[in-house]
Amino acid sequence: MSRTSPPFSLAIDAMGGDAAPEVVLDGLELAAERHPEARFLLVGDEARVGGALARRKRAARACSLRHAPDYIPGDMKPTAALRVRGSSMRIAIDAVAQGEASGIVSAGNTGALMALSKIVIKTMREIDRPALAAIGPSARGDVVLLDLGANIQCDARNLVEFAVMGDAFARAVLGLTNPSIGLLNVGSEELKGDDRVRAAAETLRDSHIGANFRGFVEGHDITAGTTDVIVTDGFTGNVALKTGEGALKLMRDLLRQVFTSTVPARLGYLLARPALDRLREWMDPRRYNGAILIGLNGVVVKSHGGTDALGFAHAVDVAMDMVTHGFNESIRDGLTRLSTTGPRIAADSR
Amino acid sequence: MSRTSPPFSLAIDAMGGDAAPEVVLDGLELAAERHPEARFLLVGDEARVGGALARRKRAARACSLRHAPDYIPGDMKPTAALRVRGSSMRIAIDAVAQGEASGIVSAGNTGALMALSKIVIKTMREIDRPALAAIGPSARGDVVLLDLGANIQCDARNLVEFAVMGDAFARAVLGLTNPSIGLLNVGSEELKGDDRVRAAAETLRDSHIGANFRGFVEGHDITAGTTDVIVTDGFTGNVALKTGEGALKLMRDLLRQVFTSTVPARLGYLLARPALDRLREWMDPRRYNGAILIGLNGVVVKSHGGTDALGFAHAVDVAMDMVTHGFNESIRDGLTRLSTTGPRIAADSR
Repeated sequence: MSRTSPPFSLAIDAMGGDAAPEVVLDGLELAAERHPEARFLLVGDEARVGGALARRKRAARACSLRHAPDYIPGDMKPTAALRVRGSSMRIAIDAVAQGEASGIVSAGNTGALMALSKIVIKTMREIDRPALAAIGPSARGDVVLLDLGANIQCDARNLVEFAVMGDAFARAVLGLTNPSIGLLNVGSEELKGDDRVRAAAETLRDSHIGANFRGFVEGHDITAGTTDVIVTDGFTGNVALKTGEGALKLMRDLLRQVFTSTVPARLGYLLARPALDRLREWMDPRRYNGAILIGLNGVVVKSHGGTDALGFAHAVDVAMDMVTHGFNESIRDGLTRLSTTGPRIAADSR
Repeated sequence: MSRTSPPFSLAIDAMGGDAAPEVVLDGLELAAERHPEARFLLVGDEARVGGALARRKRAARACSLRHAPDYIPGDMKPTAALRVRGSSMRIAIDAVAQGEASGIVSAGNTGALMALSKIVIKTMREIDRPALAAIGPSARGDVVLLDLGANIQCDARNLVEFAVMGDAFARAVLGLTNPSIGLLNVGSEELKGDDRVRAAAETLRDSHIGANFRGFVEGHDITAGTTDVIVTDGFTGNVALKTGEGALKLMRDLLRQVFTSTVPARLGYLLARPALDRLREWMDPRRYNGAILIGLNGVVVKSHGGTDALGFAHAVDVAMDMVTHGFNESIRDGLTRLSTTGPRIAADSR
């Protein structure tokens, strides 16, 4: 990948997501306003995208349209998706691999995006495996959680690399200068957990990010915001993310029932509504849209397939932050420092 | 352990918990009313417990007091706790091991209770490892989750045994005749996850509880109540439990802020309060107090150390349900059926 700035900031898969290309284009209309310098390579079926793009003035100015004769359906297996060379997702990914764009945003098939990105854009030479990361709300601000399912089984080395990538991500996207890092475990005492998390903790303590490493954190620390970055394996991270989302959903559903259960409760809701609306806005899933596959030679952001224009624009924001803040350079730098300062990073801690 | 009914339903550690023995005795006063047939062996310092017990009429009638010169502090390591032979916890556990009581309830040191129970009461011959289980709220009623941290690393055989124990537990404590069972994973499709969960799923499908086995469930299924029992390893279960609790706490804290943020919001809260109080009651952690160590030759229930009388009484309820509904016989039965009907339960799936 070229070190000079590529002609396009991002390649955009116009055909991914439940309401593509309309929602994608509405999202780009917002994104073009927020990022006036950005140039997007929009990839999709010219016949379906061309006219719709022309009707959105800002997006039309910011985008170049490239034709893709095909697209990846949401239920296609990754192995099958690899064979569809003319898909909008593939052509957008090819553009990143060839240095035409710094990253890609797609609201399409997650498994296909992960598989295609890994195979075409490729994993950074410095790391073993890429990870899936996301940002979520906590009592003390936004928190980065990774891995969320890209790696079902992880060793100590993977966890250490996730910490370095999470550190770079929190700097680039949350704008933190010294993000604190925690390793998810079943207790905060040093002896808790298995050999894997204990070896990872030992390596992190001695590393260049050791001063920001807060040791072990527990499940409740995710929403408490005890640390800015929380590192775990893909199995645990996936379960934790979905469990937390499920608990918040249960509470929202129950509150809806409460506020419609009696006439005084309905009145109470009307009175408290402006304050409740601020809470809803603060927890709005669209504000947290965008799962990021990190550790590749390019920025890869997956938007939720069912999001709206605002959500898609947020996924573009995340990708733009990563591109403009030299996210991948920062990861490379962190991993280089890790290999020179962390003696325990060798095979013995794996 | 004798198969005839022991003289005491439960042994009670009078000295465990933040406000022992007062809270324990208040809890027993409630429990004695709810379970008029029950006999409790109350173990603690006679000087501290005797007079306090005499002042609680129902508890005094239901309990026999046995002196224990010592107790286990909350921060004592399990290895140290094992050496304190005269502790209230130890003497209560000894009573279970010797067939004097069917089970024990303690609000004391969790690690000590688990270690002492495993060593003194011992694991059932039929199973490999005991598990820690708890009940939590969901959109569709109470859900049993296990393991919650007794086993950090589990193989397929352990997961299958947890499912059988969870099934027996849901029958005994939730009173369900055909509890549905799910295996926690990162996706619901058959190919998701690692070899371990796939092997466990295959064994469960072919077992006597196969008809109630719903396959893989995900993190959000815990609070959705998709199945009555959710099985996972101790690492994932511990993180999931604490993540869910953390998310609910975040929401409660935010709502408190919302309802005190403006005058209309305060008024709204007052109007909606009866309905909100019902929600609070429904989610009351005291209703879910009591983590259960299952798979031992006796019933072992750990009450939260900071709970009040109502919470402690609930932990006693759970233990009484397990004792009176022949919980351990039901596990033994399930495991025997598993070994005769489940061909894949042998070493090849471990």
